[in-house]
Amino acid sequence: MNLEKQILKMAQAARAASYEMALLTTHEKNVALKAIARALVRNQEYLIKENFKDLKTAQTAGYSMALVDRLRLNPKRIQAMADSLSETAGLKDPVGEVLETIKRPNGLVIKKVRVPLGVVGIIYESRPNVTSDCAALCLKSGNAAIFKGGKEAVHSNKAIFKILKAVLTKTKIPLEALQLIESTDRQAVQELLKHDGLLDVIVPRGGEELIRFVAEYSKIPVIKHFKGICHVYVSKNADLGMAHAISMNAKVQKPGVCNAMETLLVDKAVARKFLPSMIADLQNKGCEVRGDEQTRAIVTKGVNKTVEEDWRTEYLGLILSVKVVDGLKEAIDHINTYSSHHSDSIVTKNKKEAQRFLDEVDSACVYVNASTRFTDGYEFGFGSEVGISTDKLHVRGPMALDGLTSYKYKIYGNGQIRQ
Amino acid sequence: MNLEKQILKMAQAARAASYEMALLTTHEKNVALKAIARALVRNQEYLIKENFKDLKTAQTAGYSMALVDRLRLNPKRIQAMADSLSETAGLKDPVGEVLETIKRPNGLVIKKVRVPLGVVGIIYESRPNVTSDCAALCLKSGNAAIFKGGKEAVHSNKAIFKILKAVLTKTKIPLEALQLIESTDRQAVQELLKHDGLLDVIVPRGGEELIRFVAEYSKIPVIKHFKGICHVYVSKNADLGMAHAISMNAKVQKPGVCNAMETLLVDKAVARKFLPSMIADLQNKGCEVRGDEQTRAIVTKGVNKTVEEDWRTEYLGLILSVKVVDGLKEAIDHINTYSSHHSDSIVTKNKKEAQRFLDEVDSACVYVNASTRFTDGYEFGFGSEVGISTDKLHVRGPMALDGLTSYKYKIYGNGQIRQ
Repeated sequence: MNLEKQILKMAQAARAASYEMALLTTHEKNVALKAIARALVRNQEYLIKENFKDLKTAQTAGYSMALVDRLRLNPKRIQAMADSLSETAGLKDPVGEVLETIKRPNGLVIKKVRVPLGVVGIIYESRPNVTSDCAALCLKSGNAAIFKGGKEAVHSNKAIFKILKAVLTKTKIPLEALQLIESTDRQAVQELLKHDGLLDVIVPRGGEELIRFVAEYSKIPVIKHFKGICHVYVSKNADLGMAHAISMNAKVQKPGVCNAMETLLVDKAVARKFLPSMIADLQNKGCEVRGDEQTRAIVTKGVNKTVEEDWRTEYLGLILSVKVVDGLKEAIDHINTYSSHHSDSIVTKNKKEAQRFLDEVDSACVYVNASTRFTDGYEFGFGSEVGISTDKLHVRGPMALDGLTSYKYKIYGNGQIRQ
Repeated sequence: MNLEKQILKMAQAARAASYEMALLTTHEKNVALKAIARALVRNQEYLIKENFKDLKTAQTAGYSMALVDRLRLNPKRIQAMADSLSETAGLKDPVGEVLETIKRPNGLVIKKVRVPLGVVGIIYESRPNVTSDCAALCLKSGNAAIFKGGKEAVHSNKAIFKILKAVLTKTKIPLEALQLIESTDRQAVQELLKHDGLLDVIVPRGGEELIRFVAEYSKIPVIKHFKGICHVYVSKNADLGMAHAISMNAKVQKPGVCNAMETLLVDKAVARKFLPSMIADLQNKGCEVRGDEQTRAIVTKGVNKTVEEDWRTEYLGLILSVKVVDGLKEAIDHINTYSSHHSDSIVTKNKKEAQRFLDEVDSACVYVNASTRFTDGYEFGFGSEVGISTDKLHVRGPMALDGLTSYKYKIYGNGQIRQ
């Protein structure tokens, strides 16, 4: 069977399975989740053996150490995958939740009830735990899902799916509810993205290049974030020790991720006091610092010049741009101009100022006195996440169970007709 | 200024205004809504005079009587527009609503708070009350909006906007929050649809051709419904008198709208009893009836043959297709195959059967014992609507205040950093 027909057949089977999925009880779904969790741990030798094939290919291909490490499965990581599945089993089932009840003067009762989206397409790269995390969230939210992982993890993903499918045959979950596209051909993605009548949403999870590719070719709605250009603003009312710790954490704890800080904004009233030790400590951690003129007037050595492009750049590494601003308004304006609307934080002891920042910064997650690094399904208590959204429609921020649902109106009448 | 620059400038001004709109108090918005309502009534002579220009053009161009009537403004209709504005002032302000509060073990408090979408583009046809209804909903939900009405209503829309703008100068609402594209060139729409960085959503409201045009050219997310292929299913457990009244209402009360019935499904157990008088009464109202073989075996005269295409057709007029089905499952399968996922109704006295229909029919609005004609923002108690959505993402069914909002996470910390 050629790729075109094969993908169409998968999408049709997923659509059919989605109707069954929508009717499963919470208990039926939880039983399956816990059984998959146990099966992953029970089959860890097999998983590690298959994963080793991916690691070998990656090493031969000269992938970076960081990437090879992200690919790696070991007993600890497999246990973490299983724990995440069990945790998802423990989360509240969103399906069937009555979001609103409206009683009309004519006696109609209108209930707005949460339902699954239907069929979800997940297109992702590298880490194999994404496969089990996303499968768990889709299953719990009553969706069917089609997975297309990166070619670097093909053996690991196949192995996870083999275990998962073996479990499903013993549960109420239809086998076609969770499907993996095994082809590593990018053409497979393009075929999948055609079926807007069969899939309800696509979540691409990976680098900007992957997301732009998906957004360009998809006829299906795409939930996306292209970039994470996150800011920390140190107000003149900040606890400067706290500001130092938060800025350090937001930049260096894991610089390659979307919720890491890319630009530090500092009120000019505290810049002279705050910046010298902050910049020195960042540089000691191997971070290149780029500053605007005022920053470079304060720290005269070792700070490179920023250019306009810096404010728009997601470095995804140990580089930070720093700007001295004239108060809250300039900070908010800078963020609303250059932010990717992902996560931005203010450090301040002034509640009114904090509230204005929270109200006026137009981003998915706005923080007071905390690191931007918390924007994450697990850290928000959502179990895990299928992705992060910087869109404003449908879902914003970490996308987990609620983001995987839609709703329908159920209307109860006793013969009402329209006048 | 050429069209391209003009539209860009409008979009930029709307974006800037949207930040101010998001911060308005409920009182400030309600004051403006009530003032616009009063101003419409006060200026009704001017409105009727300008509207008359559109009516004359439409008559000269040989538009149908129905279309000319939809265009017409008179004191009663202007009062209804004003009433709708006042009613919107009375609705709960969605902005600022705390949808969820999450307290994390590390002390972070995460509040999911409703915020306006930002900038909304409304592209619509004919009826001038759409202009005031949509302006009211956008204003109340704290959005800026750009309007592009049909060329047939250009004088009426300009007149409404002139009154509206004169009121805004005396309120806290920024003047650029509500803008009308006066050009009747379709190129203007294409220019608007380019600005995905400045507009957050497009709502096209009109015929399928308009909606397809917008969906094809838009880089901005589009909330849409292409068709309304709505079903009524008469179960063997139906009160047949009620079924008759509901079917009649759903088909003939206003056949040219999206929530009118296009296909009647009847259980074979009651078909012989139900169909003869039903079909005769529909025909007496001037409705053409097309039936499947079983229908035509029961009513042997005056019923045309259905072809496959009938089940997929939105007649938007006095034509009905009728099918006899073998029970609930076949009815649900037919609807999930052919419905446009807009509005579908079951008539039954059996609660279990009703529940199965509500659960399994995959449509925005599913009814028990009521006419499909109630799918409408006003009938749902939403004041009015900017459109109806058959999408599953973001908003489903009538789109009003809640559908015009997104949310953000406001996260309150006291120095939390990620471990």
